[in-house]
Amino acid sequence: MNGVVDLSIQSLGSCRIQSPLVNASGGSFVSDHDRILYDDVVCDENRDLPVSQWPSFEAAGARREIFFDPSNTVAGIVTCGGLCPGLNDVIRAIVLSLWYNYGVRRILGFRNGYQGLNPDYGHEILSLDPEAVDGWQDLGGTKLGSSRGNQDPARIVDTLVAQNVNILFAIGGDGTMRGAQTILEEVTKRKLNIAVVGVPKTIDNDILFIDESFGFQSAYMAAVDALKAAHVEAKGAPNGVGLVKLMGRDSGFIAAHAALSMSDVNFVLIPEVPFKLEGQGQFLQALERRLKKRHHAVVVVAEGAGQDLVAGDDGKDASGNAKLKDIGVFLKEKITAYFKTIGFESSVKYIDPSYLIRSVPANAYDSVYCLQLGHDAAHAAMAGKTGMLVGRWHGKQVHVPIALVTTGRKRIDPSGALWRLVLESTGQEAWETPAE
Amino acid sequence: MNGVVDLSIQSLGSCRIQSPLVNASGGSFVSDHDRILYDDVVCDENRDLPVSQWPSFEAAGARREIFFDPSNTVAGIVTCGGLCPGLNDVIRAIVLSLWYNYGVRRILGFRNGYQGLNPDYGHEILSLDPEAVDGWQDLGGTKLGSSRGNQDPARIVDTLVAQNVNILFAIGGDGTMRGAQTILEEVTKRKLNIAVVGVPKTIDNDILFIDESFGFQSAYMAAVDALKAAHVEAKGAPNGVGLVKLMGRDSGFIAAHAALSMSDVNFVLIPEVPFKLEGQGQFLQALERRLKKRHHAVVVVAEGAGQDLVAGDDGKDASGNAKLKDIGVFLKEKITAYFKTIGFESSVKYIDPSYLIRSVPANAYDSVYCLQLGHDAAHAAMAGKTGMLVGRWHGKQVHVPIALVTTGRKRIDPSGALWRLVLESTGQEAWETPAE
Amino acid sequence: MNGVVDLSIQSLGSCRIQSPLVNASGGSFVSDHDRILYDDVVCDENRDLPVSQWPSFEAAGARREIFFDPSNTVAGIVTCGGLCPGLNDVIRAIVLSLWYNYGVRRILGFRNGYQGLNPDYGHEILSLDPEAVDGWQDLGGTKLGSSRGNQDPARIVDTLVAQNVNILFAIGGDGTMRGAQTILEEVTKRKLNIAVVGVPKTIDNDILFIDESFGFQSAYMAAVDALKAAHVEAKGAPNGVGLVKLMGRDSGFIAAHAALSMSDVNFVLIPEVPFKLEGQGQFLQALERRLKKRHHAVVVVAEGAGQDLVAGDDGKDASGNAKLKDIGVFLKEKITAYFKTIGFESSVKYIDPSYLIRSVPANAYDSVYCLQLGHDAAHAAMAGKTGMLVGRWHGKQVHVPIALVTTGRKRIDPSGALWRLVLESTGQEAWETPAE
Amino acid sequence: MNGVVDLSIQSLGSCRIQSPLVNASGGSFVSDHDRILYDDVVCDENRDLPVSQWPSFEAAGARREIFFDPSNTVAGIVTCGGLCPGLNDVIRAIVLSLWYNYGVRRILGFRNGYQGLNPDYGHEILSLDPEAVDGWQDLGGTKLGSSRGNQDPARIVDTLVAQNVNILFAIGGDGTMRGAQTILEEVTKRKLNIAVVGVPKTIDNDILFIDESFGFQSAYMAAVDALKAAHVEAKGAPNGVGLVKLMGRDSGFIAAHAALSMSDVNFVLIPEVPFKLEGQGQFLQALERRLKKRHHAVVVVAEGAGQDLVAGDDGKDASGNAKLKDIGVFLKEKITAYFKTIGFESSVKYIDPSYLIRSVPANAYDSVYCLQLGHDAAHAAMAGKTGMLVGRWHGKQVHVPIALVTTGRKRIDPSGALWRLVLESTGQEAWETPAE
Repeated sequence: MNGVVDLSIQSLGSCRIQSPLVNASGGSFVSDHDRILYDDVVCDENRDLPVSQWPSFEAAGARREIFFDPSNTVAGIVTCGGLCPGLNDVIRAIVLSLWYNYGVRRILGFRNGYQGLNPDYGHEILSLDPEAVDGWQDLGGTKLGSSRGNQDPARIVDTLVAQNVNILFAIGGDGTMRGAQTILEEVTKRKLNIAVVGVPKTIDNDILFIDESFGFQSAYMAAVDALKAAHVEAKGAPNGVGLVKLMGRDSGFIAAHAALSMSDVNFVLIPEVPFKLEGQGQFLQALERRLKKRHHAVVVVAEGAGQDLVAGDDGKDASGNAKLKDIGVFLKEKITAYFKTIGFESSVKYIDPSYLIRSVPANAYDSVYCLQLGHDAAHAAMAGKTGMLVGRWHGKQVHVPIALVTTGRKRIDPSGALWRLVLESTGQEAWETPAE
Repeated sequence: MNGVVDLSIQSLGSCRIQSPLVNASGGSFVSDHDRILYDDVVCDENRDLPVSQWPSFEAAGARREIFFDPSNTVAGIVTCGGLCPGLNDVIRAIVLSLWYNYGVRRILGFRNGYQGLNPDYGHEILSLDPEAVDGWQDLGGTKLGSSRGNQDPARIVDTLVAQNVNILFAIGGDGTMRGAQTILEEVTKRKLNIAVVGVPKTIDNDILFIDESFGFQSAYMAAVDALKAAHVEAKGAPNGVGLVKLMGRDSGFIAAHAALSMSDVNFVLIPEVPFKLEGQGQFLQALERRLKKRHHAVVVVAEGAGQDLVAGDDGKDASGNAKLKDIGVFLKEKITAYFKTIGFESSVKYIDPSYLIRSVPANAYDSVYCLQLGHDAAHAAMAGKTGMLVGRWHGKQVHVPIALVTTGRKRIDPSGALWRLVLESTGQEAWETPAE
Repeated sequence: MNGVVDLSIQSLGSCRIQSPLVNASGGSFVSDHDRILYDDVVCDENRDLPVSQWPSFEAAGARREIFFDPSNTVAGIVTCGGLCPGLNDVIRAIVLSLWYNYGVRRILGFRNGYQGLNPDYGHEILSLDPEAVDGWQDLGGTKLGSSRGNQDPARIVDTLVAQNVNILFAIGGDGTMRGAQTILEEVTKRKLNIAVVGVPKTIDNDILFIDESFGFQSAYMAAVDALKAAHVEAKGAPNGVGLVKLMGRDSGFIAAHAALSMSDVNFVLIPEVPFKLEGQGQFLQALERRLKKRHHAVVVVAEGAGQDLVAGDDGKDASGNAKLKDIGVFLKEKITAYFKTIGFESSVKYIDPSYLIRSVPANAYDSVYCLQLGHDAAHAAMAGKTGMLVGRWHGKQVHVPIALVTTGRKRIDPSGALWRLVLESTGQEAWETPAE
Repeated sequence: MNGVVDLSIQSLGSCRIQSPLVNASGGSFVSDHDRILYDDVVCDENRDLPVSQWPSFEAAGARREIFFDPSNTVAGIVTCGGLCPGLNDVIRAIVLSLWYNYGVRRILGFRNGYQGLNPDYGHEILSLDPEAVDGWQDLGGTKLGSSRGNQDPARIVDTLVAQNVNILFAIGGDGTMRGAQTILEEVTKRKLNIAVVGVPKTIDNDILFIDESFGFQSAYMAAVDALKAAHVEAKGAPNGVGLVKLMGRDSGFIAAHAALSMSDVNFVLIPEVPFKLEGQGQFLQALERRLKKRHHAVVVVAEGAGQDLVAGDDGKDASGNAKLKDIGVFLKEKITAYFKTIGFESSVKYIDPSYLIRSVPANAYDSVYCLQLGHDAAHAAMAGKTGMLVGRWHGKQVHVPIALVTTGRKRIDPSGALWRLVLESTGQEAWETPAE
């Protein structure tokens, strides 16, 4: 990480109100001076620097003094983009923490993403309290509804002002965070005391400066069912091939983790590691060798893999992401055609389990993680933090500037430990020497 | 049921060998005279007939005397057609019953369906014993492999003779049972003492003269996951439609049961009940009404529904079944186009979970049922029964002539209790007055 | 079944109101003349009788004419006794059928069993409608709460009258049904037009005149998890014994089915089949032989098994059932002591999963079954049937007089097909020749 | 962490053999110079120190040069102590990595813990290869068997020598690691080139210097089922109390995480936070207040909590751990007696799911983690590392000296983030100001 990265967190002002938690908990709080090192690997370049010169994150957690007076605080929550396990857990945790830890009594749920903050859509605004969110932690999806795409920040801030909202919690991916920044800019322009706090959501686990995004574990755990089905189908027919397309536009984390956790996958194809279909040692020949040796094979492909191989036009979806061409259907056809050409009996069973994965409830780990994220988001917002999101770094809860996470995407390092384990475990070729 | 139906079971000859079970179990056996009524509903037509004039099935179970001498009996097992939960349970149960109950020591597993009995394919023949099948009950699919289509009966009987097989267990659907009949005819022509015993397999639950086929409950239980995903997706977007295509070529049993067990389905479309897309009170308008009222909807369609609506050619698959046109993709496009035309924001999430359903392991109920079927198949075969299959009728295990089950398919009665419950539960229109 | 059994159903009077379902469903109804044979096994004694002389059940389902006017009908629902999977499904199905099929608009939920009908307890009375019961089908237990024991019928009928209740749905076991009969007698004594309709609940599956009680399949499916744990524990230690106590006071259905569905059980001990601990060929020696041969064993015992072996006093619980002595703990101690005595290293891992089993949500099969039961209960009650319960017989929905089901308990026949399969599958000794 | 802690790793000698992975993977390796900081929180005491003075761990992973020649390496694997999810995954991963990554062809599985290395027990020694361990990742428990307690190190080393074992992998808890150290001392005394490599196993997650032990997530995920059952039972009876005892002798990690992931727990009692039963603001009164307000409560207690409250003697189990008194049964009785005394109707449903939790298969996360641990153990051993174990620290794989992890136990910090979240989430009292 180069030195120009700025990990400092914006604040609406100094905290002069004693937290209601002081009396309740006997007083164990986090200070803004508690910081978590960004880097914890020692190497020749950094070993002689005092750590005060190393970048570090502000620690998340309850502060002894807060900025907003709970008795007249109004909070709003919105969920945006595609579904991801844990959305309801995060919403519920924010509500419960605001309500029970701070005594906030007005919490609004905006429906269907940023649409719900734009009065033109006429979506109902929900009033949230502990009873309203009871049981939400057991439900997949989002009870608030979601939608893709951003809305006019002026219209949104009009709504915030009309509803007397002091804090907006935006739960979503990098498109949503870009939207949150435009809202923040509008808020700043109008000199309003409204905090904008993000909770980063990406089922692909591709957000920077976060160990792992919530819902990611639940997602690859659910993906294992599809891999097992593919394995059963592959073994159920002569030279069967089970082919599964998993989520992963830019990053193959779900494909890699699901393959590692299931242990009967023979090929993992991800966006980070280019491959060719034909030619000595390339995918189709490698698959042929595998089938001739073991009579069945399981192939996992991330949706963003091999985009250079798929012909056709491309556009953008409502969130502004490049539309992916369907590598799954493409591979199914190419494999079938290849074996037909060489006169080798085989059958390909293609599985695209996307909606079945992203709609599951959070697993136990993600439930705890989402609870933590929701509480930390509430703590941060009540302390007047803004323009930031809550995350986890090397196992500890931290605050991250929103501006940082939209600068790129986290990807699998083809020469790192994760991909090495995939190669060691599947026995598949490395395809191409990873470009440094 | 009219009087011409013949429920009598063929036998290879009289049973002169005392069953080894006589000493083991203290002797509780089934007699060929034990019979189960085909019909148990009393109505004006039948109330005055003595039951001796009613058709009835022979009861399944262990016989006190058997036909084959276990010490020189060789059994073969083959699984054919598409995967279905419980295949491995049935194989294992046959093996364990032959081995432990009777002392049969040579049991062959033919690989990849009837291909495995045709030496031209060169598939390995497995030797099965209790250790070989250990743990199979926890695995989906079939450890023997499967394939579609029948093979030359002469080649098959050559293999049976070469391997000294006395009993062939054929586990499969109606195509497989037709194949079993041709094998039986060849066996009869050659005057061989080889029993052919079927275990009926149809994930669609469409085999006649059987309460319920094994794997059917596991299948609709697994289908519920897809319906839940569809429901979550539908509620996660403005006017979301979750559309799920389930198995059911000729019969909508899986669609109906999954919809009933999940309870958040609004429309069930099955082959037995025709529907139209457009027009007053027809599907698209009904869906529009639902969305305008509740803002989300779940639609389940059996793969064989609405085939009259889908344009295009058709052929036959390797099993000789008419190839279905894809009603799921068709509906997805039609719904999307319709709402676009009328300018109504909606999004359709389409799920096709077929492989994920048929590859699951048997659930607890099916495990017990498959165990029973396997034991009953072993008992029937050892007693020299042939040209028959084992099934369950009104909760009791029975023998059914193979020739009967291939005469048609079991379908949902649009004026019967099951469909009535679907209508009562979903609140959907009856579409068309069911033909009496 | 002897001829004195009376399967006729009481009615509050003639049905003069056209069912609202006539217009909705296009008219497919059940008639009181539709009857299902009690017996469907043909044997020498009965083969020459005309079926009109055979006992038969009245078929369940919607009637074309009904007794109660939906516009002024008030229904009450109560759940009693121990938890069982599917209680919430049944409650919800009754509510939805009354509401949507008939237009009943006042449905009361009495809390905590018959306590909720006794004003002395002061329990709140809930008002139920489709929104109130939304999602209940996914929840184990009962949202109405439950309690054991009956209450003064006079106090209960006072409450029914005070609340203008026309129909009382009582969901519970045979104690509950005896309570329902006393309520019915009080109602009759006061000449009130109140229908009392039961839905039989017994996780043990021991109610007479019912194929299978709701929740039973879910229960033995859940029990399999405990058996798997016992198997893993047994294999994880030298000569490990996994011992699991399952529900089954008088009947070993759960133990038998769970053992059959799991297939790695070596001993099943049930109330219907007495056994001795020590002596040639008895339990402890048989277990010793098993361990010396295979080094691990799984034992399943129903809670009501071997009560003659356990010393100590006994009483009655609040439902009036004899309190069972704990055979599980007893066996654990006896096995441990026996192996210690003979100097054989072994360890017993004892699992009592009772609450974990009975609290699970209904599985897919039971969800459908409960839906059917709830609808049929609503149909029966609206038609003025009383003193009856809804059940399933040989796969068809029927009405059963309440008075019948409290006359005894359904038990496993030690010489029947189910127990035979257990013996065949486990290989365990028959212990004692079953008494005829 | 004070400066005297030594994180350096022992080695059998210099590595002069090129790793077979060099050709396979294109060469991405870990160096002994790669180090992970022990501490990554910046505070006033450490901010001016150069990191070269901070303690750090050696990074785990494949080395370019190795110590053992794969062609004549013999490896042995043993699993000890109580069951834990993932044991089979770790065994299998070690086998697969040795076999495929290195070409080791002789891998021995010692049965039933250290007993299997002591010839006096006569346990069979298994030969492990990829086919032998196929499918083990789907199985709970350990296919090698386990036992508690250590054995004479001289007898063990005799066995290692007799079998030509170069590497012993010991998978177990701190007792096992102490045993491993005595083996290592015996090996050193005899000047043998035998590497002893540990994989730390503790379902309680109480091993020091490890982020999280394998199987811990699977365990608390499985524990959630028990908490859900307790919640359902609590709500199913008037003033119901669901009481669950979970694992956790010295540390309440499972109790805390399960409670957080389930979100309907009202009291969490752990060994780290003392509590009193009676008196103003103490447990029984707090429970009474809760019941009077909400009519049901869920209580989770770790097995090591409240040991000061339970009267009676204590001893040591075979592993040398102090035997715990049963706090679960104790609390059940105390709660029941208390409410009886004050004349308050309540019922306590007590659940002890221990064996059901520890016997589950690893979940997807733990499967990946165990795969990583197994590979890293193989890499470390082949590189001649000894007296160490593989672990994860702040998300990165590291080597840890065995001697360190047996110096104490990891416990929940009552003033740290985890416990704070428990207090915030349950709303329970802090009981006592944590003494620091």
